[in-house]
Amino acid sequence: MLEGLMQRRGLLISSIITHAARHHGGAEIVSRREDGRLERTDYRTVERRARRLAAVLQELGVQPGDRVGTLAMNSDRHLELYYAISGIGAVCHTINPRLSHADIAYIAADAEDGLIFTDPGFLPIIEAVAPALAGMLRAVVVMDGSEPHAILPPGMGLYGYEALLSGAMEVPEWPEFDEHAASALCYTSGTTGRPKGVLFSHRSTVLMAMMMNFADTLGLRATDRVLPIVPMFHVNAWGIPYVAPMAGAALIFPGRQLDPVSLLDLLNGERATVSGGVPTVWLGVLAELRRSGARFETLRRILSGGAAVPRALMAEYAKEGVHIHHAWGMTESSPVATWNAPLASTAGLNPEAALDQQATQGRTVFGVDVRTEREDGTEAPWDGAAQGNLVFRGHWVASAYFRRPDTSVGDDGWFPTGDVGRIDPDGFVVLTDRTKDLIKSGGEWISSIELENIAAGHADVAEAAAIAVPDEKWGERPLLIVVPRPGCQPTEAAMLAFFEGKVPRWSMPDRVVVAEGLPHGATGKVLKTELRRLYAHRHCEPLGEAIQGPR
Amino acid sequence: MLEGLMQRRGLLISSIITHAARHHGGAEIVSRREDGRLERTDYRTVERRARRLAAVLQELGVQPGDRVGTLAMNSDRHLELYYAISGIGAVCHTINPRLSHADIAYIAADAEDGLIFTDPGFLPIIEAVAPALAGMLRAVVVMDGSEPHAILPPGMGLYGYEALLSGAMEVPEWPEFDEHAASALCYTSGTTGRPKGVLFSHRSTVLMAMMMNFADTLGLRATDRVLPIVPMFHVNAWGIPYVAPMAGAALIFPGRQLDPVSLLDLLNGERATVSGGVPTVWLGVLAELRRSGARFETLRRILSGGAAVPRALMAEYAKEGVHIHHAWGMTESSPVATWNAPLASTAGLNPEAALDQQATQGRTVFGVDVRTEREDGTEAPWDGAAQGNLVFRGHWVASAYFRRPDTSVGDDGWFPTGDVGRIDPDGFVVLTDRTKDLIKSGGEWISSIELENIAAGHADVAEAAAIAVPDEKWGERPLLIVVPRPGCQPTEAAMLAFFEGKVPRWSMPDRVVVAEGLPHGATGKVLKTELRRLYAHRHCEPLGEAIQGPR
Repeated sequence: MLEGLMQRRGLLISSIITHAARHHGGAEIVSRREDGRLERTDYRTVERRARRLAAVLQELGVQPGDRVGTLAMNSDRHLELYYAISGIGAVCHTINPRLSHADIAYIAADAEDGLIFTDPGFLPIIEAVAPALAGMLRAVVVMDGSEPHAILPPGMGLYGYEALLSGAMEVPEWPEFDEHAASALCYTSGTTGRPKGVLFSHRSTVLMAMMMNFADTLGLRATDRVLPIVPMFHVNAWGIPYVAPMAGAALIFPGRQLDPVSLLDLLNGERATVSGGVPTVWLGVLAELRRSGARFETLRRILSGGAAVPRALMAEYAKEGVHIHHAWGMTESSPVATWNAPLASTAGLNPEAALDQQATQGRTVFGVDVRTEREDGTEAPWDGAAQGNLVFRGHWVASAYFRRPDTSVGDDGWFPTGDVGRIDPDGFVVLTDRTKDLIKSGGEWISSIELENIAAGHADVAEAAAIAVPDEKWGERPLLIVVPRPGCQPTEAAMLAFFEGKVPRWSMPDRVVVAEGLPHGATGKVLKTELRRLYAHRHCEPLGEAIQGPR
Repeated sequence: MLEGLMQRRGLLISSIITHAARHHGGAEIVSRREDGRLERTDYRTVERRARRLAAVLQELGVQPGDRVGTLAMNSDRHLELYYAISGIGAVCHTINPRLSHADIAYIAADAEDGLIFTDPGFLPIIEAVAPALAGMLRAVVVMDGSEPHAILPPGMGLYGYEALLSGAMEVPEWPEFDEHAASALCYTSGTTGRPKGVLFSHRSTVLMAMMMNFADTLGLRATDRVLPIVPMFHVNAWGIPYVAPMAGAALIFPGRQLDPVSLLDLLNGERATVSGGVPTVWLGVLAELRRSGARFETLRRILSGGAAVPRALMAEYAKEGVHIHHAWGMTESSPVATWNAPLASTAGLNPEAALDQQATQGRTVFGVDVRTEREDGTEAPWDGAAQGNLVFRGHWVASAYFRRPDTSVGDDGWFPTGDVGRIDPDGFVVLTDRTKDLIKSGGEWISSIELENIAAGHADVAEAAAIAVPDEKWGERPLLIVVPRPGCQPTEAAMLAFFEGKVPRWSMPDRVVVAEGLPHGATGKVLKTELRRLYAHRHCEPLGEAIQGPR
């Protein structure tokens, strides 16, 4: 091979914050604290504090490759952790605090988190899961300036974030290492009911962030002010904590105050120009906008995804001068695989047709390839009609789940997304169904199998199936269908009471339908597609009519 | 090391055209032929033809790493060569047809081009240089559909491009190989007077193109129609042949018709939205616009660089609704190192101040770092005042010149640009001077040392110095200063006559000044800075006053 004579430098995450500190050092970072106060810093300061935090991590025994957990909302401190942990070659494992304690304990144990950094508000979660992690979890760091108090197992350290930082000297510069090194870990719910880890690399993260800065995707500018509402524990807030400093854009972190009133106040008060969040959030913000008579004073663009964005929502935001970018992907694609931006061939559509197209999941971005496959694995045509299993591959697509070599698709394989869709002749993807049995509610996954397993544990239940039904606010909500054991008469109220305490409140079924039987396929599998056809409309109906079986 | 579990795929140039063919297959590519006709094709067709051309190259004996020369203006066929040659792991060596025959022969020999693809119009150049390349250059391919005729040394093949393609079967898919492999080679004039080769890699090219698609740089959209006027033999047309297909933007190639009338006709006729070229081109187009009373019907943005863009030119284009993006770099930085786009701190400037800032070379892009160094190699402050030698490093910065290991700066070293400048507190770079002795005329380099060596060969000349003087149309033009030997009286006319035939007409000095002596520094080196101070205003003065010496 004749090698090019170009400088070889790793695509390391530290290079993003180094660039921001050096060339956009004064760009602002605003964080809403738990008490509501706004604190301001900038990239120059965050980079220096991240180097100090890197020294703290090393003092606390963190080695390259070690996983460090975070249980935190969006803030400058969480940003510092992103860069400090990855910057020294360790793995930033963002834990979703909305999961059940059992799942959090499982995930932290699977990841072998030796340290967990937590927002003060999540200390009760830590206290609940810490006993299960004794012996592995060495210490907990509480991310504020106070002296922390918590009841932890003996030998488990407890530190205050600011106290640790104030006592440390920053590492002089970021170490260099292989760009394929793991940088971050994020668990996602699968069909097995057990979350599985997606292990991002420095290279995949930097390349994804570069793609996200393309003019035809999020395309941040140094003059933008970006408010990521999507949590930093959801696929790294869709990459925004990397995309913004790469572009030198200001960041505005909302903390825990994610109610529409607080968000609207922050969007306008901090002059956000770009934001990102699941459709449920934008429904709430729109309702508040209408209620209060306020306007979006500076907001111009929104990235939304995580669930299909309703066409009507896009139309309403367009009236307010805000364009909603519809994108699609999943944790396994870091997450952006398609992005909705016009082509020359679709740029001249009339407003209604343009809105129709804006409501599709968009076209494949550079760096990834997407296709629909027939059952035999061959590619389905791009005719806008043929449905197939959506699969993808590319620089920021998972090759396997963490510690699950059995899930490997290799470097060149097509990763199955579990979504079913079609592709139109222009390459725009439309999701139509889902092969895996998950319910996406307000951006959070609910495992239908988990709900079914619980229901099946009730003495009166012979068989159960949980399906997603469309919901105007949450995108989808779970509906449970139970078949009684002979002679038994399970009621909706009894079933709901049975779920209490077994899953988080937001993942409890909204409705329970008692049916005479479930439709089964040839292999004995419950035909969820058929159930969705039969029951998708059930959600809004009065409960009294809900007892009937499929024909 | 804990490796991330992300798919590993090479950053190969073939992935750009594969993406374009698959996801933007119908995006248009328009080429002006030598006879003035416009031909239309698209990315789907170009990718397929490039795979057919790849088979042709292999049949002609091209191996990975081999250099293949091109002597061609901007066209779809040149684009096919870019992707076919690099796509099979060979090196696309773009030769500047404006160089002297001697330089072209030197460059082709240094590169060891086994094949050269030429536009029909450049066949006379090939005929002139072929004898010097006999034994190395195996064949010449003429890039049109006709039966070629040329007088070449015995054993040197001569083929027609379309005839070769029509007889070939495309390779089924692009091969995979190391992303650090050399992809393209471009020679640049240095202070030694001998051109030196910059050897780009697949990785450096793909990363540079990704950065160029950022919203805060060229940021092409799929709805854009891009007309690269900057030749494809000038640092790969500043990357546009990679940037446009990556974004799915249409491409419009002007061929040889680079006069203002033809360009304006093509810009409007083909609805170009974005274009790129050196300032000289834009001065001419503006003059034609004023002369004809025409308007820019669709053009909105221009990338300009290669020489400082006059502030007044930006103001005039702004009046026409066209924004000029000012960028800086060189062949050794692929070429973009800085790009002028506002920061939050500079976005609120009044129009005059904004124009002042727009006229600077801009701020450092992600992927590169730029600094000014004092003579001792330490970094000069960003105070807008301290001048220093500009140096850069990054993913698409050369580590050394081809076959010149003595020029290596390594993977982490700062590459000396030869430019002198200052950096303001916001990070905007302003070029102020040049340490190396080159003259940039209409986007082409003229070596002052070459001119000096020729002048010094005249019997009446004791010492000579060539300097750049500002020129409204060309950016810079060469001025020659000669010191007579005792008793001799060289005249301007005699000196200009002496240059005839020794250099291309466009690199001949515009004026010759006869001086009593030259200012020298401590080490005996001619102080060009001092000469520029004394003679920069000489360009427009009547010749009769031009004989005087420095005080």
